[in-house]
Amino acid sequence: MALLLSGPPERATIWAQVFAEAGERLIVAPEAPEDRADVTAIACWKPPADLSLYPALRAVISVGAGVDQMPAMPKGVTLCRTLAVGIEQMVRDWVVMSCLMLHRDMPRYLDQERRGEWSSGPVAPAHRRTVGVMGLGRIGRLAMDSLQALGFQTCGWSRSGDPLPGHRVYGAADLRSFLAQAQTLVCLLPLTDQTRGILNADLFAQLPMGAHLVHAGRGAQLDSAALMAALDGGRIGAAMLDVTNPEPLPQDHPLWSDPRVVVTPHVAASTDAQEGARHALAVLAALRQGAPLPGRVDPGQGY
Amino acid sequence: MALLLSGPPERATIWAQVFAEAGERLIVAPEAPEDRADVTAIACWKPPADLSLYPALRAVISVGAGVDQMPAMPKGVTLCRTLAVGIEQMVRDWVVMSCLMLHRDMPRYLDQERRGEWSSGPVAPAHRRTVGVMGLGRIGRLAMDSLQALGFQTCGWSRSGDPLPGHRVYGAADLRSFLAQAQTLVCLLPLTDQTRGILNADLFAQLPMGAHLVHAGRGAQLDSAALMAALDGGRIGAAMLDVTNPEPLPQDHPLWSDPRVVVTPHVAASTDAQEGARHALAVLAALRQGAPLPGRVDPGQGY
Repeated sequence: MALLLSGPPERATIWAQVFAEAGERLIVAPEAPEDRADVTAIACWKPPADLSLYPALRAVISVGAGVDQMPAMPKGVTLCRTLAVGIEQMVRDWVVMSCLMLHRDMPRYLDQERRGEWSSGPVAPAHRRTVGVMGLGRIGRLAMDSLQALGFQTCGWSRSGDPLPGHRVYGAADLRSFLAQAQTLVCLLPLTDQTRGILNADLFAQLPMGAHLVHAGRGAQLDSAALMAALDGGRIGAAMLDVTNPEPLPQDHPLWSDPRVVVTPHVAASTDAQEGARHALAVLAALRQGAPLPGRVDPGQGY
Repeated sequence: MALLLSGPPERATIWAQVFAEAGERLIVAPEAPEDRADVTAIACWKPPADLSLYPALRAVISVGAGVDQMPAMPKGVTLCRTLAVGIEQMVRDWVVMSCLMLHRDMPRYLDQERRGEWSSGPVAPAHRRTVGVMGLGRIGRLAMDSLQALGFQTCGWSRSGDPLPGHRVYGAADLRSFLAQAQTLVCLLPLTDQTRGILNADLFAQLPMGAHLVHAGRGAQLDSAALMAALDGGRIGAAMLDVTNPEPLPQDHPLWSDPRVVVTPHVAASTDAQEGARHALAVLAALRQGAPLPGRVDPGQGY
C-alpha cells in the first residue's frame, strides 16, 4: 500500500516528512514502473492519463477543494477532494474582505489613489446592504455567519433550498426572488453542468441596479462579456474576481484595467501542504479499515 | 433654547426635519445676530472663533467622533462628541477590511493587476497572524472581537491596561512587549499630547520584521518619513492609511504611489445626518433635565 503524489517539489518534501512520521509509504511522481503495482491512492491536481497502469488503485485525491478538473473515475476507484483544515476559513476570509472592499468603495478609492486624489464619498453602514450567497456548503455557511456578524443582511441560495438556522434560504425555484435582493452577489458554487456559465446576462439582469459581484466559485461559471456589459449598463457597480474566464486572465484582457473590477489570481485559498498530507493519510487509513473515505465526491452531484 | 448647526446644506436639511418632528428649535449658520441669545448648544466640526457672542451657550457638540480639532471650552460650556449609532461599526468594518487586505497580500495583487500579471503567492491562514490593536475604546474592542472571530490572534494596548475578557491586554509600561508580537499593528488611538507622533521610527523598530500597519487614528500621530524609511528597510511590509500626515495628502506625496501602501481619504466612518441630529436632541434633552450630557468629553483625557 502506497500513495503516489504528483506536485511541486516543495510540497513533496513536506509530504515525505509527514508520511515518514506516520510510517506510510509515499512515492513521488514520476514513479518507477516497478512501483506502480503498490499504488493504492494517487494525490494530484490532475491524474495520469492512463489509470489502468495502477492495478491496485482504489482512490484519487484532488489536492484542492474542487474536483471539476478531474476525469470520470474507473470502476472501483473513489474520487476524493481534500478536506484540509483551514481551506474553508481562507475562502471565507477572502469573501468577507471582498464584500467589505466593494461595500466601502475600494475600487473608487484605488482609482483615486492612482491620480493622487483625496476625495471622500459617503459611508454606508453594513446593515443597509444585503449580501446573497450562492452555494451553501461549508464555505458558504461560514461566509453567511461572518457577514451577518459584521452587520450585513444576508440571504442564501442552494439547489436544495434546505433551511439554515438564522438565515433566509432560497431553493432552485426561487432564484429570481433571491437575486432581486442580492445587492452583493457572492458565488461559491461548485462547477457542474448546471452551474457552467450561470453568471450570465440573464442572471445579472435580475440583480438590483449597481449590485456588487464577488466571485470565488470557478472561472467557467462566468460570462466575462456579459459582466462587462452589465458594468457598462450600471446593473453591476463593481466586482471582485478570484476566478476568471479565461483563467489565467490574459495580460491584455480588459477586466485587468477596468477600474470597477479587482482581480486576484485564484488565491482565495490554497491547501497547506501539511494539512493536505494529513488528509491523504486519513484516506489511506479509511481504505485499510474499509471505512467511508473522507472527502468522497458524489459522482452524481459532482462535488 | 435652540441649537445652532454649522455644516453643509444637505446635512442641515435632514437636521431641520428631525428637529421639527421633535419640536425643538434649530438655527442654521450663519445665524442672524438677534438669534444668538437663544443658542444653548452649537453642533459643528469647528466652533465659531468667539464663543462669547452666545451668552446662553452650555454645550458644543462635535459632529464627528473625534474632538482634537476643538479649542478649549469657556467656563460653563461642555464639549461633547457625537455618539451616533453605527460609527463604531463603520470604523470596525474598515479596520477588518484593511487587516484582511494586508494579510491576503492585496497591495501585491493590486500592483500585479496594473501590469496584467497573473501570479499567485502562498496563502496564510488568519490564525498564524497576531493583530495588535492600540486604543481599546468601543471601536478597538469591537475590532478585537471581530478579528478574533475571523481566526486572527489578537492583543490590545491601552494607557490603562485594564483587562478585557477574552483578550490579552498590555498597559502603558508594556508597550515593548505588545509591539514585539504585533504582526499587524492597528492604531485607533485618539489624538492627545501623549499620542501625537506616536507612530515613529522608535515604535516601528520594535515591531516584528515585515509587520503591517493599519492606521485609523489621527494623521498627526504618524511620522510619514519614518513610515517610508520603515517600508524601505523591510520593518514594515505594507500599510493601509485612512488618515495621513499631512492630511489631505498632497497630490505629489510619495505615499500615494508606493505600491506597498493603500491610502483612503479619511472614510473609515462618517456620521449619518439623522443619527447626528438625534444625538444633538439627546444633548438638548439632557441640558433641560440637568442630566449628564451624552458624549461628554473629559477635558483631562481629551476624549
